[in-house]
Amino acid sequence: MKTFACIAAVTGLLAFAAPASAQFAKPEDAIKYRQSALFVMGQHFGRIGAMVNGRVPFDAKVAADNADLVVTTSKLPWVAFGPGTESGGNTKAKAEIWTEQAKFKEYGDKMQAENVKLAAAAKTGNADTLKTAFGAAADTCKACHDAYRAK
Amino acid sequence: MKTFACIAAVTGLLAFAAPASAQFAKPEDAIKYRQSALFVMGQHFGRIGAMVNGRVPFDAKVAADNADLVVTTSKLPWVAFGPGTESGGNTKAKAEIWTEQAKFKEYGDKMQAENVKLAAAAKTGNADTLKTAFGAAADTCKACHDAYRAK
Repeated sequence: MKTFACIAAVTGLLAFAAPASAQFAKPEDAIKYRQSALFVMGQHFGRIGAMVNGRVPFDAKVAADNADLVVTTSKLPWVAFGPGTESGGNTKAKAEIWTEQAKFKEYGDKMQAENVKLAAAAKTGNADTLKTAFGAAADTCKACHDAYRAK
Repeated sequence: MKTFACIAAVTGLLAFAAPASAQFAKPEDAIKYRQSALFVMGQHFGRIGAMVNGRVPFDAKVAADNADLVVTTSKLPWVAFGPGTESGGNTKAKAEIWTEQAKFKEYGDKMQAENVKLAAAAKTGNADTLKTAFGAAADTCKACHDAYRAK
């Protein structure tokens, strides 16, 4: 049973890590890549945040474009959390990412799912709908950072 | 005439910088954003390079997916070369970017155009076609780095 659970976890991780064709020349590149993808994602997410929090005027087209970029970039970081990338560069990734891979995958899947909902909400052109979806997506960022990113 | 040329240059720059809605909290964020977007782009570009140079087996689907990501990410950095981001962080951007904005824009446009051709080439599923397009796109990276990135 333990063996089965382990195989299931590994299989899940492989699916999570797709496209597995990623080729990082060295661990530092993988770390820089995942940080870069998450930073770009965060900037576009933040532009939506500025709208839903009233810091900039609501613009449905801009919100939708940014949300699409959030969805695209939210798919990228995961492949770069492979074996051998636990340390190096200026990573703040906690060791638990590699010891709780199924749980970490759950957090990542949840974040991606909420971002897809965010993009759908942005396409409605309704600021309130967008705000609700933004809040739900933001919660997934925080949950994963609290669990797996060092302060 | 000089005034007109100046207005034309500024108008061109604004078009280049679209979506102008980007909101960077501070210059360092803009610098980190453009570096992050270019790094992510470079990694996906490099995965195609590994194929066309025979370091990894050719896989048409993987090439096409990576090329699409190259196209998407190649649109991002430009808005982050705004006024006030000439220095800060660990930028290697040369001052000429801000004194030769029309020329810099030309380099950026050319790179984006070649990346679109790269994605089209990737969709043919023909490794030789992809290799040719990859070479042309790589030339635009080098040209811009030679002109506008400090060693």
